[in-house]
Amino acid sequence: MKLEIKQNILLEHLNYVIRGISTKNLRPILNCIKFELTDEGLYLMSTDGDISIKTFIDKKNIKKIDTKGEIVVSGRYIHEIIRKLPNEIINLEEVIDSKLYINTTNSSFTLNCSNVNEFPDLELEFNQNPIILNQKLFKTIINQTAFATSVSETRPVLTGINFKIEGENLECTATDSYRLAVKKIKLENKAKENSNIIIPTKNLNELIKLMNSDEENIEMHIFANKVVFKFEQIIMMTRLISGTYPDTSKLIPETYELTLKVKYDDLYDAIDRASLLTNESDKNTIKFETNKEIALISSNIPEIGNVEEKITVEKDNESEIKIAFNSKFMMEAIKALESSDIKLMFNGEIKPIILKNTESDDLIQLILPIRTY
Amino acid sequence: MKLEIKQNILLEHLNYVIRGISTKNLRPILNCIKFELTDEGLYLMSTDGDISIKTFIDKKNIKKIDTKGEIVVSGRYIHEIIRKLPNEIINLEEVIDSKLYINTTNSSFTLNCSNVNEFPDLELEFNQNPIILNQKLFKTIINQTAFATSVSETRPVLTGINFKIEGENLECTATDSYRLAVKKIKLENKAKENSNIIIPTKNLNELIKLMNSDEENIEMHIFANKVVFKFEQIIMMTRLISGTYPDTSKLIPETYELTLKVKYDDLYDAIDRASLLTNESDKNTIKFETNKEIALISSNIPEIGNVEEKITVEKDNESEIKIAFNSKFMMEAIKALESSDIKLMFNGEIKPIILKNTESDDLIQLILPIRTY
Repeated sequence: MKLEIKQNILLEHLNYVIRGISTKNLRPILNCIKFELTDEGLYLMSTDGDISIKTFIDKKNIKKIDTKGEIVVSGRYIHEIIRKLPNEIINLEEVIDSKLYINTTNSSFTLNCSNVNEFPDLELEFNQNPIILNQKLFKTIINQTAFATSVSETRPVLTGINFKIEGENLECTATDSYRLAVKKIKLENKAKENSNIIIPTKNLNELIKLMNSDEENIEMHIFANKVVFKFEQIIMMTRLISGTYPDTSKLIPETYELTLKVKYDDLYDAIDRASLLTNESDKNTIKFETNKEIALISSNIPEIGNVEEKITVEKDNESEIKIAFNSKFMMEAIKALESSDIKLMFNGEIKPIILKNTESDDLIQLILPIRTY
Repeated sequence: MKLEIKQNILLEHLNYVIRGISTKNLRPILNCIKFELTDEGLYLMSTDGDISIKTFIDKKNIKKIDTKGEIVVSGRYIHEIIRKLPNEIINLEEVIDSKLYINTTNSSFTLNCSNVNEFPDLELEFNQNPIILNQKLFKTIINQTAFATSVSETRPVLTGINFKIEGENLECTATDSYRLAVKKIKLENKAKENSNIIIPTKNLNELIKLMNSDEENIEMHIFANKVVFKFEQIIMMTRLISGTYPDTSKLIPETYELTLKVKYDDLYDAIDRASLLTNESDKNTIKFETNKEIALISSNIPEIGNVEEKITVEKDNESEIKIAFNSKFMMEAIKALESSDIKLMFNGEIKPIILKNTESDDLIQLILPIRTY
């Protein structure tokens, strides 16, 4: 393998594949990046066994392709070296004793390579009819649901986001069993086959960091135990979580005893301040109580002090609500709504609280109340 | 105590005193801030026993002083509360049962107060003839020396910066016994008394974070076991480290066998890249070797690979040098020089390396070589 390439181009692609290397030292080959130079251009590949990333630099972006070939080299070192080199033409050449020689005008590095045959197969494949989504929309879906995922490994299915595809409907659900986020999307192209899969949330968070373009689309190729995402010159595979995702559809009520309309900033800031006098050990509990067009938000830590916040609310009827909830969960749900006005829906103090924005029903946030009254 | 004050003004001053509260929970009173409201204005105070901070808000910046008085309240809570309140007028009032009532249009907090009599004396005093330094210059002194301080508690005197004042000369020295930074300053006002004190580096780093103004001066009031700094409306006291600082003056040679002039960027970037193939466990050792107008900088980790960097140097004679040193120490020394050209001075491979900038002799950086050849 021998080529000449501009530093910034190589670095951009190393920045993608570096996210696929393993940070554990269990199998050293998984800390490596594979280079594959062909007549078409340069492929870079990484995998940690759970996700795989492959990216492509077209020959028109490579100054010179001298000799085709493949090498496998430490991901961390090659990435740091290329990152610190000046933005000049870099020569990369495989030399005897399976070493990679990297040089510019004033710098020359030699890195020991690993055996190409030991590098695992990335298992990237595609199907005929992928799901197609706009990248910006895809990022929004993840950002509006991922935070509600469970961080505990007790129930592995809850550490992922459930993607349910039926015809033209995509429904994404995350829950840690105390709260729930559901986002519904109409697909532009109807799916040929229905799917119901669970994608690890941490891998989706890595995936959206690879996305640069708000205009371009992303293809989602779904298989029995994996999903392959393809966008621009990047391909990323993630394993699926096996198991059955709980049916959460019955949790969302069809009617509400009371609906409040509140300003996003008023609600968020008041809860943010009230949460100052809450404890993690006490589930960050705050109380919420309406009294005509006012809602009082209060909390206390007996040895420190107490707080009472007042916000204006618009009610759909004259009933009142008195309820308690986790202030951190509520703040994350409000943030996900991304809307200047918010609807809060209640069915009494022991039933779930539902949050929506006032513009659409696409996104539903649900929080279980805490019994204190 | 009762007053009305704009949120941003109170917050600015809480941001100062919060740096003085203890982060340990050994004596809860040290986690508190003391408020003292007088006819002149509001004083805020904090101390962790090692440093003390006092700041003053003049009455002209307070909307209304209702009742004078003193309270002591949890620093962390009052700071977070004021920080999260909107930029409106805040009412602060001491109410019965020694509580502090804080309220704005929509928020009301009650915080439990501590006993004012338990709050320690800050021991702030002043002498007639303080040392006076420009704030920007003071920050520069600290930034150019502090990094060379020892982080190990084995020799406590090395965890501080030595300030030696003789007449109009101030000399600041830091060393961890592997490297040394010395900054010399001519004072505008000759000191009445000579001093030789050791100020804890971590406290100096806190002090320079309190400084906002590059134009204004700072007063340094030196006592037997403490130093009191005064600038704008802020007073900060720090204890001194007791003990005798080592005499480092003989370490700086008067003549050099070889002096090199190099470009800052060339040298820094080359060492930065070469340091990629070094190990902390191996003291980040890199080799430096001249050959006519070229210097080669090299390093290697046998199982990973090796690197050789080339830079152009200007020599004052035809002798050559071949030496090894800690690349991290060298990079920190270069950064402190803040100059586009740098002088490197050598007296053979086992004698200290001296770095200066080409404009002045005010700042000397010394690094001991590592014997490898």
